[in-house]
Amino acid sequence: MKDNENLKIYNLADIGHLKVHGRTTNNRSPLTLFWTGSGIELNVTGSELWIEVECDYDLYEPWIHMLVNSAPVSRRMLTAGRYWVCVFRGLNENAAKNVRVLREIQAMSGDPACSLQIHAVKTDGAFLPVPEKPYKIEFIGDSITSGEGIIGDKAETEWISMWFSAVDNYAALTADALDADFRILSQSGWGVLTSWDNNPNANLPRYYEQVCGLLAGEKNEELGAFEPNDFGAWQPDVVVVNLGSNDGGAFVSPEWKDEVTGKVYKQRLNEDGSFNEEDASNFEKAAERFLHTLRQNNQHAHIVWAYGMLGMPMMPAIYRAVEAYTRKAGDRKVSIFQLPNTNEETVGSRSHPGALSHQQAARELTGYLKGILAK
Amino acid sequence: MKDNENLKIYNLADIGHLKVHGRTTNNRSPLTLFWTGSGIELNVTGSELWIEVECDYDLYEPWIHMLVNSAPVSRRMLTAGRYWVCVFRGLNENAAKNVRVLREIQAMSGDPACSLQIHAVKTDGAFLPVPEKPYKIEFIGDSITSGEGIIGDKAETEWISMWFSAVDNYAALTADALDADFRILSQSGWGVLTSWDNNPNANLPRYYEQVCGLLAGEKNEELGAFEPNDFGAWQPDVVVVNLGSNDGGAFVSPEWKDEVTGKVYKQRLNEDGSFNEEDASNFEKAAERFLHTLRQNNQHAHIVWAYGMLGMPMMPAIYRAVEAYTRKAGDRKVSIFQLPNTNEETVGSRSHPGALSHQQAARELTGYLKGILAK
Amino acid sequence: MKDNENLKIYNLADIGHLKVHGRTTNNRSPLTLFWTGSGIELNVTGSELWIEVECDYDLYEPWIHMLVNSAPVSRRMLTAGRYWVCVFRGLNENAAKNVRVLREIQAMSGDPACSLQIHAVKTDGAFLPVPEKPYKIEFIGDSITSGEGIIGDKAETEWISMWFSAVDNYAALTADALDADFRILSQSGWGVLTSWDNNPNANLPRYYEQVCGLLAGEKNEELGAFEPNDFGAWQPDVVVVNLGSNDGGAFVSPEWKDEVTGKVYKQRLNEDGSFNEEDASNFEKAAERFLHTLRQNNQHAHIVWAYGMLGMPMMPAIYRAVEAYTRKAGDRKVSIFQLPNTNEETVGSRSHPGALSHQQAARELTGYLKGILAK
Amino acid sequence: MKDNENLKIYNLADIGHLKVHGRTTNNRSPLTLFWTGSGIELNVTGSELWIEVECDYDLYEPWIHMLVNSAPVSRRMLTAGRYWVCVFRGLNENAAKNVRVLREIQAMSGDPACSLQIHAVKTDGAFLPVPEKPYKIEFIGDSITSGEGIIGDKAETEWISMWFSAVDNYAALTADALDADFRILSQSGWGVLTSWDNNPNANLPRYYEQVCGLLAGEKNEELGAFEPNDFGAWQPDVVVVNLGSNDGGAFVSPEWKDEVTGKVYKQRLNEDGSFNEEDASNFEKAAERFLHTLRQNNQHAHIVWAYGMLGMPMMPAIYRAVEAYTRKAGDRKVSIFQLPNTNEETVGSRSHPGALSHQQAARELTGYLKGILAK
Repeated sequence: MKDNENLKIYNLADIGHLKVHGRTTNNRSPLTLFWTGSGIELNVTGSELWIEVECDYDLYEPWIHMLVNSAPVSRRMLTAGRYWVCVFRGLNENAAKNVRVLREIQAMSGDPACSLQIHAVKTDGAFLPVPEKPYKIEFIGDSITSGEGIIGDKAETEWISMWFSAVDNYAALTADALDADFRILSQSGWGVLTSWDNNPNANLPRYYEQVCGLLAGEKNEELGAFEPNDFGAWQPDVVVVNLGSNDGGAFVSPEWKDEVTGKVYKQRLNEDGSFNEEDASNFEKAAERFLHTLRQNNQHAHIVWAYGMLGMPMMPAIYRAVEAYTRKAGDRKVSIFQLPNTNEETVGSRSHPGALSHQQAARELTGYLKGILAK
Repeated sequence: MKDNENLKIYNLADIGHLKVHGRTTNNRSPLTLFWTGSGIELNVTGSELWIEVECDYDLYEPWIHMLVNSAPVSRRMLTAGRYWVCVFRGLNENAAKNVRVLREIQAMSGDPACSLQIHAVKTDGAFLPVPEKPYKIEFIGDSITSGEGIIGDKAETEWISMWFSAVDNYAALTADALDADFRILSQSGWGVLTSWDNNPNANLPRYYEQVCGLLAGEKNEELGAFEPNDFGAWQPDVVVVNLGSNDGGAFVSPEWKDEVTGKVYKQRLNEDGSFNEEDASNFEKAAERFLHTLRQNNQHAHIVWAYGMLGMPMMPAIYRAVEAYTRKAGDRKVSIFQLPNTNEETVGSRSHPGALSHQQAARELTGYLKGILAK
Repeated sequence: MKDNENLKIYNLADIGHLKVHGRTTNNRSPLTLFWTGSGIELNVTGSELWIEVECDYDLYEPWIHMLVNSAPVSRRMLTAGRYWVCVFRGLNENAAKNVRVLREIQAMSGDPACSLQIHAVKTDGAFLPVPEKPYKIEFIGDSITSGEGIIGDKAETEWISMWFSAVDNYAALTADALDADFRILSQSGWGVLTSWDNNPNANLPRYYEQVCGLLAGEKNEELGAFEPNDFGAWQPDVVVVNLGSNDGGAFVSPEWKDEVTGKVYKQRLNEDGSFNEEDASNFEKAAERFLHTLRQNNQHAHIVWAYGMLGMPMMPAIYRAVEAYTRKAGDRKVSIFQLPNTNEETVGSRSHPGALSHQQAARELTGYLKGILAK
Repeated sequence: MKDNENLKIYNLADIGHLKVHGRTTNNRSPLTLFWTGSGIELNVTGSELWIEVECDYDLYEPWIHMLVNSAPVSRRMLTAGRYWVCVFRGLNENAAKNVRVLREIQAMSGDPACSLQIHAVKTDGAFLPVPEKPYKIEFIGDSITSGEGIIGDKAETEWISMWFSAVDNYAALTADALDADFRILSQSGWGVLTSWDNNPNANLPRYYEQVCGLLAGEKNEELGAFEPNDFGAWQPDVVVVNLGSNDGGAFVSPEWKDEVTGKVYKQRLNEDGSFNEEDASNFEKAAERFLHTLRQNNQHAHIVWAYGMLGMPMMPAIYRAVEAYTRKAGDRKVSIFQLPNTNEETVGSRSHPGALSHQQAARELTGYLKGILAK
């Protein structure tokens, strides 16, 4: 191999035209990618481009997806260590290329050792401005929004990084169709009030105001995961909340016991199979509180609760929560949208929505958001 | 990261149940992958699997595609060097996984330094038998069969490894639909008689009987590229020849001059735009000779000349060549199939068939081959 | 033409194996077809089949659709008069043919002269039993459920019979996919509380308990349109209510004045464009009352309010109405399903859902009802 | 019913702006519709339009399809007699409507009594010019081009008018996509040399120069079916020949005996299943002769032999025939196009191409003809 002697290394902090996707801290030396779909975007000339990554994990290794001029060219696991990854080589050095390198997997609350950072890029080209897109959308969700199950044969059942996708999920597809920048905050198994197995700590609202508060451990603290998020720096036009699937699951899952306090948590069913009213009401209050939190931090955004890709037992409760919030807050910029259900033809691995289901959801949601953004 | 201390290294030569795809030599220490779509297949238990690759290049770097239980999970560039690549980790160690690691790019006749080898695999699992598929198909073609243009935005024009795909091309899709093992021999720009630019050396038939004779250089000689191919080891049920597009292009491209002999080569058009009869006849004779070569080496295969994904000006000449061959050889197991043309909706990058065009071609060709294989 | 001398005439009343579709009276001499999708079904041998129709109108002529072995073979206008229509001829006289002749257009409340009756059939064959289907579904709706706009170029704007379809609308497609018999009660422009233009008389609930009470005039009285419906004779498994689109329209349409009483009706918007709470509440009460009416007459049916093919501004109010009804009635067999919205690609004539929109709605609704019917 | 007193009757001969589709005589009092896809086209204002038809038959009754502003609004059988058929009513009398009334079934060589004529139209509107389309295409074929099997359940096996379609067949779809006027000459079971059952009289070429010479009987003679066709009046830009399927079938069908001469006809197979060379050669000569006939009568047309919707065993022979013709005639405006084969998903009734197969064929053929028409 002939070395390309014209390559120069640039620390991310030194690139004026760097565009960062996803919630993170202000640190660029290095940049930490916490959430699925987070990453960097560059418009760059030159024949060759590399990125220097550093990552670690005990259980769940990170994966990235690299896109060149919007085409997904490479999806790969990143094994532990600090090293250079080549994005492209052999191109016309005068032409500008748009490059996105995105974290393909969700924040891993189950593996405090999991981390992914980008230190630098190496190129023989120059950096050009990356324009803002006309819209910004934030997606908040669970495994569906994490793209769990998009990759892999339908028979796959194991919970591993490899079956997740940030690039083919409905959030990315919707943002792409609307020409919008997007951020995703998502966690498999989590809900508005509890997780699928009744754990009251595993809810997204609790951590909404931190950079990535659902992570744990000293390392993540050092990385700034628990810092308050700088909402002023990125105000979305739309916030899409795709939560409720796990809250629904809690009604049909075993109780969860807090090993410290001994307290037991369980969303209960009535004998006729309907939801216990008090428990459903607790979900509604949690949803209502979350809407207040969202509005407090996102002043002008239209908030859309989008739900239904894995059934919709919580929909009446979601309507009640939005109704209660709207009445109290006098806030009309909140609405509900039912996403198309996943069926045998559109299911992916791990009984989750597959690529076809995500495409269908994106098509419907795009149509709905177009109407909202046109107002 | 915690090291997995149960991993054991196996040289390919020591794996009894290794299945090798694609034409190559008998050497497994290491295994050289010459052609697009070539690679290894394993049925393996264990939680983790790595492969040790070694590659080099001056111009065109290799890419690979990794499939787990038939799902394409990773597509990545391989930069120069010898190193380990992780295929999967974190899986149930008792379950068997089917793994294929395939070379994603064609043999690179334009870069004698380009090489890709697999030395070993590393796993905490055991190897199980990989059954033969019911059919074997060999595809012989040009850039179309190399999958050039399947990846990348339509505006891309540069000739680089990144835009090729072995996994999404019509050959792989057809073989998959027919539950067949397949081999591809292909080279962008090459034809039956000459290349698109009238170079008489750039034709596939000349090198058909060698392992990968279209490569050049001492290194490839050492790798065994010029050895005679062992036809007895792999007899296809069908040979698909998708050649002619570049022979057609030669009629509308400038002449080619042999710098050594000074001789000039040019397929000529008549004044009315039709093909010069003598030159067309030279193409036909080359096609006829190639059919004899194919039959000599593939005794029981049905030979299908499949052509048309980028127009079909050579089709009458192909019919004449097959007619002449059939009459002389008394061989009825040769037929012609017109593939659907690429259009504005199905085109990919570099004005080549895109993923949709390959899917359509595979659908039609599969239907046609089903009829043949059912006989 | 040679006359078929073996044809025999059978009055409908004399055919033991006649299956009648759609709400109508007990009279079969002749049978009156009031609603879209109503008609007759026969399993009949013989080479030839005719039906004797009688119809009249001042404004809106009837159309019928004829299906042979489920294939739609003929769609035609019926001009005024009493005459014979040939369904098929020249078939093998021993084979049984399934035949359905369906009214293709809605009950025409705007034309009291409009009527369609079937007197008799004529055949050289014999009648065989027509089995019941496993399920029965009743659809209640407006122009969408009347199939308005399925036929005709997108530029068509005139309100005429020709643009309606009973056979290609989502109700028929859903019933077909679920192997269900179905009935449709629908009226363009009508709603739950008022019509699109605030007329409080133009609501479906008011006439639900009559055979076809929304018609007017002495002729329809004689035909039995105002008789009480015999609910015991046909109890659906599912009632689908697709109403609300016109109630939503009333908020943005001019007031309606009762010329007799001088009273003015208008669903009002607040200054900020939201619905006046009192007026929305009136809609909700009407919806809630309708649910009580539906349950009273359909004891075991699951009631599904399916809404959204032309936007969904009334959805929160529908959720409130269903909530209120469920709480008071303690009836859990009521749910809400959001149908996919119509877009530029799926729209038909008269700015109404086109064939593609109906197909998409049917696909989603079928999936939803499958889940309900499986319980 | 209130009579529309403004209706006026116009004999076809008296309508200046009448556009006639399909080969027929010069007679317009009445106009005889011989071929499938033939008919009349009007641009007409007025609220109402009727046509006066007259038809008869012993076996196979005619069907028509009526299109208003390109939308197919009605498909119906025409029973024997002379009577008025309403096309539309109730429309805005000032707006212009484009109306086509097309014969839906092929010329019926098997029923000399079968005839369909249009005498007059009746309207309260006025006639406007109907512009010529930019292109003219003539289609010559067999049952495929007659649209046999497009209508009806896959299980249908009887040969009756009801299963044919002129409007949904590939010829009409292709012409529509290319914005071309079209004519169809087609006959189920017929070929270039013989019919599917070796009858040498049942070939299209023999009757090509007559208006509709394949019909028989005195009545058809009186109607002018055997008159020479006026080629000068309609010169196509493209002639599509979709023949060969029945010539192929003759090789695997029983012999045909001329009851008058006692002569027996049979296209023979060799023992190995290949075509007897002499018999194949007879087909080729017939095809070659037909090309001469076509060129003689259509001076500037590009001739495309399009074949393959029900397999393609005759393709090599077709290539040989075109080759021979081209060499002798020095005519380069002849080419061959393989149409996509019908499969289990696209088949219709009577084991013939269904609507999906015709749509696919039209898509591919349209792409091919676009290239030709662009030259």
